Amino acid sequence: MINQPVETSSVSANAACERYVVGLDFGTLSGRALVVRVADGAELGTAVHEYGHGVIDRTLPATGQPLPADWALQDPEDYREVLRVAVPEAVAASGVDPRLVIGIGTDFTACTVLPTTRDGSPLCELAGLAGRPHAYPKLWRHHAAQVQADRITELAHERGEPWIGRYGGRISSEWEFAKALQLLEEDPEIYARTERWIEAADWIVWQLCGVETRNRCTAGYKGVYQDGQRPSPDYLRALHPGFADFVQDKLEHPLSQLGGRAGGLTQRAARWTGLPVGIAVAVGNVDAHVTAPAAKAIDPGQLLAVMGTSTCHVMNGDVLVEVPGMCGVVDGGIVPGLWGYEAGQSGVGDIFGWYVENCVPPAYLDGGDVHEHLSTLAGRQPVGQHGLVALDWHNGNRSVLVDHELSGVLVGLTLGTRPEDVYRALVEATAFGTRTIVAAFDAAGVPVQEFVVAGGLVKNQFLMQVYADVLQRPISVIASDQGPALGSAIHAAVAAGAYPDITAAATAMGKKDVAVFVPNTAHASAYDALYAECRHRVNI
Amino acid sequence: MINQPVETSSVSANAACERYVVGLDFGTLSGRALVVRVADGAELGTAVHEYGHGVIDRTLPATGQPLPADWALQDPEDYREVLRVAVPEAVAASGVDPRLVIGIGTDFTACTVLPTTRDGSPLCELAGLAGRPHAYPKLWRHHAAQVQADRITELAHERGEPWIGRYGGRISSEWEFAKALQLLEEDPEIYARTERWIEAADWIVWQLCGVETRNRCTAGYKGVYQDGQRPSPDYLRALHPGFADFVQDKLEHPLSQLGGRAGGLTQRAARWTGLPVGIAVAVGNVDAHVTAPAAKAIDPGQLLAVMGTSTCHVMNGDVLVEVPGMCGVVDGGIVPGLWGYEAGQSGVGDIFGWYVENCVPPAYLDGGDVHEHLSTLAGRQPVGQHGLVALDWHNGNRSVLVDHELSGVLVGLTLGTRPEDVYRALVEATAFGTRTIVAAFDAAGVPVQEFVVAGGLVKNQFLMQVYADVLQRPISVIASDQGPALGSAIHAAVAAGAYPDITAAATAMGKKDVAVFVPNTAHASAYDALYAECRHRVNI
Repeated sequence: MINQPVETSSVSANAACERYVVGLDFGTLSGRALVVRVADGAELGTAVHEYGHGVIDRTLPATGQPLPADWALQDPEDYREVLRVAVPEAVAASGVDPRLVIGIGTDFTACTVLPTTRDGSPLCELAGLAGRPHAYPKLWRHHAAQVQADRITELAHERGEPWIGRYGGRISSEWEFAKALQLLEEDPEIYARTERWIEAADWIVWQLCGVETRNRCTAGYKGVYQDGQRPSPDYLRALHPGFADFVQDKLEHPLSQLGGRAGGLTQRAARWTGLPVGIAVAVGNVDAHVTAPAAKAIDPGQLLAVMGTSTCHVMNGDVLVEVPGMCGVVDGGIVPGLWGYEAGQSGVGDIFGWYVENCVPPAYLDGGDVHEHLSTLAGRQPVGQHGLVALDWHNGNRSVLVDHELSGVLVGLTLGTRPEDVYRALVEATAFGTRTIVAAFDAAGVPVQEFVVAGGLVKNQFLMQVYADVLQRPISVIASDQGPALGSAIHAAVAAGAYPDITAAATAMGKKDVAVFVPNTAHASAYDALYAECRHRVNI
Repeated sequence: MINQPVETSSVSANAACERYVVGLDFGTLSGRALVVRVADGAELGTAVHEYGHGVIDRTLPATGQPLPADWALQDPEDYREVLRVAVPEAVAASGVDPRLVIGIGTDFTACTVLPTTRDGSPLCELAGLAGRPHAYPKLWRHHAAQVQADRITELAHERGEPWIGRYGGRISSEWEFAKALQLLEEDPEIYARTERWIEAADWIVWQLCGVETRNRCTAGYKGVYQDGQRPSPDYLRALHPGFADFVQDKLEHPLSQLGGRAGGLTQRAARWTGLPVGIAVAVGNVDAHVTAPAAKAIDPGQLLAVMGTSTCHVMNGDVLVEVPGMCGVVDGGIVPGLWGYEAGQSGVGDIFGWYVENCVPPAYLDGGDVHEHLSTLAGRQPVGQHGLVALDWHNGNRSVLVDHELSGVLVGLTLGTRPEDVYRALVEATAFGTRTIVAAFDAAGVPVQEFVVAGGLVKNQFLMQVYADVLQRPISVIASDQGPALGSAIHAAVAAGAYPDITAAATAMGKKDVAVFVPNTAHASAYDALYAECRHRVNI
């Protein structure tokens, strides 16, 4: 007891030398704040705030009006609430003196995009527009612009637009142009009142620092910005006469490099967050891409797989090539100065979740985690024992086939097939899907040198070992549970000038365990045969 | 009350004019006795007796010795117990005076076959042989003679044996020759002591009438009897030198026509059953085939599908052709004077059972019958809504591909796929399998004129309607819950001379509701497209 005052004072003295940053990760259902020490990336406190309206996909809260199928909106006030609630909570939990916070960084789901006025006010917050569904942010998983996306893709091929090859030959219904064209065609009045069509990733930064910025990441991957330009007015006019000036009127803005300083924290945002006025606000970013520095996966050839409900693969390359079926390649899309490649598997954890919810009998559900139970049982089997081959196309296939209408396949069922057999086959199917993507990068001239994993699925050791065996490579794992928020904090540190660039900050603050899972040689060669069988069945 | 004595006396007087027969159906787990009125087939009383030893497939009861995989034996005393218990119980339940019973008929699972002495004693009942697994009856589903079956098939093709074409090109491991060759190779001493290798269908008749008979049905379908002969000694010697005289030593015996009188009930069997000494005992028969007269499906072109765990299709034809993938065609195999065709689907109810046990989540299991629940949900869907295509090869494919190593396939899975979707797809898959068989008969020159169904699955109205829609034909249904036992009773009536032949007896005693399910034209044409897709996928 006698020493306590001394100790406290000593801690305070040390803490006073430290500097801190806040990383903010805006997900689908909630936002997370994380307080991180600039010196070494130590994670000191975190808080999560659920969005009050969650995903708006059934009825519009303001009117009760039912929404059509495939719609998914959000309420921008829910994002601000994360600033007001999660940030102070995380700072309090960390015990850090807020005056020692030198920067704030953010990442967002993408493409989540909204219409605003010239000053950044969301149209849905203007008088009289709360009842107009098109006035709200469209969440990444709003899929009601498929018709528009198909026309955008088709016309690009017809006209031989040079940018279409940078996106594996297809523009997604989730992206900026498809959602904007849907807006124009379905609610021209709201379209006309839209002064800015802006990614939520950039809008939240605008809320923090008071000035509009646009980041290169979303502009490139979601906004079809390539080689210094967007799709031409001619092309846009051919899509729809009223769409010709879309880029010029509603998108155009100088783009900011990732890791850059968007501005200083405004009085209003300082009041919301409890952080000092004027601290650095980092340029906006996307959840998957921002995780790369957190996982120390930003050198050319370090592929980061963010494995959750779906898997997003991001990797830097020092050359520009067209990888078949990639989602996009963007100059400076992950860090300035390198080409950022992105690929994806449209269903991974979602498939396991679907399987557990719809296909697992009660005997397997007696207490405990069912994924864990199935993984344990499946993990005891020798490779190939179940006799099944599956294809993981339950939610389509993004890379490398780029066909969202594909569906899942299960071959080899017998009266002896048990749930753990099918579960293992599904895990293997997703691993084969990943191997196909890695092989495509290798063949295209941007070889994968290290395979690094982040995301919720890293916890499943059985699954990770299957991946190591199927890929025939060691698997490195991010050593943080908060990859995106940590990545955003790293960006904040760079924006605040604590490090000269993202690479230096990642080296000091990122966290990776190298080669946690190594391939078992016997399994690997057995999987060679199964993988060949799989490719044979799908003719790829 | 005053009239009661008169009424009783009047009933007695009428009853005294009636004659009755007993049908006995020996299944896999139990035997059933059914008392039937000769005049009109009225079913008056029934009783079931479970076999004390059931299926012996883990350890031999006499010694506790474990049995190898794929073995399945039975104890012949269990069959006799059915005579002693089920017959008197059924007669008592019927209220019929046993003195008015004029005949008894039987049917059995096949090929269930056993080694006996010259007087019909099962070897397993001889002193010192109770511990020898090969001394017991081998149940139809004993599958441990696959190696032998493969050699039998291969050698038949090598030598161009004429009979192989009558069996769709393959001799099953379940049949008489494969099981006997296994016996010879694995326990030559028991083989040497085997004086008669006899179908249980004929052995039970021997127990009833005291004389050995052999029926044309099992001899043809299971014992490779074609055109008046069995496989030659030369062929058998080439299989194994010790097998050359197998037919001559252990099988050969004049064959009896179905519906014939095997003999009169012995004193001993009369004591067991409580039936009169000397009444007609009908020639033995097989469960599926004996059901044809019960379902009034014995004219050429009336195909009977006995739908249970698997489906057996039997149909008479007035010409001999080779139908691709049939299980067998036998002269007089169903009724004398016609060619009896048999085909099969190796998994039907078994697939639905496997699905329910291994793939259905708890939400679907809240009380009530799960098959009924899934059928109700599935029945609400328009054709093709689930987007799935399945192949019902979970237990191999008997007809028309004749490949027991095939396995099940499921294509079209999405994250929205629900259990009722898969259930419906599996039902449809079995219906497509049936359509393939019907098409093969049509194309081969023995066209299917009427599709009649018996067996446990007739109760599923949803399934029956899918079959009608897929087959694009009306479906008739047997109007008895006891098809095989009723068929055996019909045979007993013929053997007793109450009718001139099976056709006449079937007309009077058989029961069929015609065209209970009729195809919905819109569904039928939608299924045309799905069926084409299915055939495309399997290249048939």
